[in-house]
Amino acid sequence: MKITVAVDIMGGDNPPSELAQGAVNAAKEFAGEGLELILVCTEDAASQLPQLPKNVTLELANSVVEMTDDPSVVMKEKKDSSLVTAVTLCKEGRADAVVSAGNTGALFTASSLIIRRIKGVRRAALGSIIPVEKPFILLDCGANLDATPEILQLYARMGSIYAQVVLGIENPRVGLLNNGTEPHKGIALYQETYKLLSADETINFVGNCEGKSLPFDACDVLVCDGFTGNIALKIIEGMAKFMGHCIKGIFHAGPLAMLGGALTLKQTKALKEQVDPSEYGGAPFLGLAKPVVKAHGSSDAYSFRSAIKQVLKYCKGGTIEKITASMANKNSSVNIEE
Amino acid sequence: MKITVAVDIMGGDNPPSELAQGAVNAAKEFAGEGLELILVCTEDAASQLPQLPKNVTLELANSVVEMTDDPSVVMKEKKDSSLVTAVTLCKEGRADAVVSAGNTGALFTASSLIIRRIKGVRRAALGSIIPVEKPFILLDCGANLDATPEILQLYARMGSIYAQVVLGIENPRVGLLNNGTEPHKGIALYQETYKLLSADETINFVGNCEGKSLPFDACDVLVCDGFTGNIALKIIEGMAKFMGHCIKGIFHAGPLAMLGGALTLKQTKALKEQVDPSEYGGAPFLGLAKPVVKAHGSSDAYSFRSAIKQVLKYCKGGTIEKITASMANKNSSVNIEE
Repeated sequence: MKITVAVDIMGGDNPPSELAQGAVNAAKEFAGEGLELILVCTEDAASQLPQLPKNVTLELANSVVEMTDDPSVVMKEKKDSSLVTAVTLCKEGRADAVVSAGNTGALFTASSLIIRRIKGVRRAALGSIIPVEKPFILLDCGANLDATPEILQLYARMGSIYAQVVLGIENPRVGLLNNGTEPHKGIALYQETYKLLSADETINFVGNCEGKSLPFDACDVLVCDGFTGNIALKIIEGMAKFMGHCIKGIFHAGPLAMLGGALTLKQTKALKEQVDPSEYGGAPFLGLAKPVVKAHGSSDAYSFRSAIKQVLKYCKGGTIEKITASMANKNSSVNIEE
Repeated sequence: MKITVAVDIMGGDNPPSELAQGAVNAAKEFAGEGLELILVCTEDAASQLPQLPKNVTLELANSVVEMTDDPSVVMKEKKDSSLVTAVTLCKEGRADAVVSAGNTGALFTASSLIIRRIKGVRRAALGSIIPVEKPFILLDCGANLDATPEILQLYARMGSIYAQVVLGIENPRVGLLNNGTEPHKGIALYQETYKLLSADETINFVGNCEGKSLPFDACDVLVCDGFTGNIALKIIEGMAKFMGHCIKGIFHAGPLAMLGGALTLKQTKALKEQVDPSEYGGAPFLGLAKPVVKAHGSSDAYSFRSAIKQVLKYCKGGTIEKITASMANKNSSVNIEE
């Protein structure tokens, strides 16, 4: 089974050569699994690439979507960008999936307009894998700021399927982010969603989850609207960074503390790896007709390679087919087109 | 200037004797500042109290509000509770302020109904002081799950005044919690609030704040609706707890790591104190006609003493008078009664 991924190596915080290196590493590592890559970049960037193995080809583009570009104008003014080109390769069937470390909003807009959504999916969502005591997937992280109970139910189903296929969790526990654990908690949207999720036999709903339980294996899939989810995601990221600063501060306080740091180097390194998002490398868009993964803007070669590994699992596990089947479920209240 | 605080020592996670000890410590420490306390408890609890100094008196109550009690029934069924008695002492003028470590919802409901709000204040808010790199006050932490732009503006003003009076910050920076820093970010409520806060000359608005910047001194007052605020507060608490577990884990990995722990004991202790909410001890309700402070449910003697110290500052700084004056500000869009 051959899987071809269109890889936009422009528009990240790191130079294209760094991302290309991550792509080349992934291509070599997963060649045996049928992975083929199409790197999309400008001519200028192409001149600085490492040597490409046989299963990597090049596709040139004329412009680059910047992080500061307004997503709504990208489709008009930057149709010839590496980002839009990568998405178009996927639409045309030359690629099975897309990875980009560029502008999140532009990737979402371009993918939604060009690749489009799975039939019955009212809204695609941005999922993010949160590495705490045990990793879980949080969605929606901001693809849509508003939601309805039916849309949150859709997120729950799509997140469950993704957790099964990509995280390898057999019966993922779905939690609803809320301001308390009791069923009546939250604003009306969340009260109604609680009822829908409780009645949905296709998922393993474990109830409302409060923020304080999130780092401690409260659930495998955490569902919320995109406004709340984006704020939650960024607070978790901020607090993880704060933790890193604090630990560094402890070990830089003087010679004895530095010795203490040397004695615990193995443990602090292991912790850093545990809470490092680069181990997963990317945030999947769920609900689109083809797999699209947003690699972190600050991706280096290692985390970009991880994002490509993730999209390979996304493809091979039949995630899209499973979401399509879930939409066709007769008991579903989620598959009503607007 | 004499300040009398009604102190409910029942209904917390720790026994009344522990909270009474904290109250007695505060009474001794701040006797010179005119602090007098009325401890409210059951007869049973009264029999186990430490010896009371001259500036502490007792008031007996017949029942206790439990953490699991529904706030809406407390006013009907537990009018004789220590919590309602403490609030009533304040209403009747026998006390100037209230502190309780009991049921948050019940304290808010009883205070709102008995003490009532400052004229012009449409909604009282629950503030919480978040101890990260530099402490800031987050409001609303869940007193009201819904809000309007005018209500969020009200929170901004009240939070500013509290930060001046209690945290001692001259010109507090007010941030709006949002999913991005640009003015157009967020759901409609937040877009409208951004405009109101920008135009409000009585506050020092510094714009939208994302979650990732919160631990790093982004603002002194962080404003949001109660649903988002409660979730944000609990994620921060959860991540701080996770940080504690991780650091403990580092130093318990083996004999060398334990030696490392011993060498950095001073630094880890300092960090623990820095991120310890018990240093502030309580969350103020803002907008009520008298100062009411909710001490943390798990308060021990030290943090209960800190909550009483906080309410003393709340009273002495003229917070209520300043909020009242702010409501009378002609340019204000916040003082429209529903």
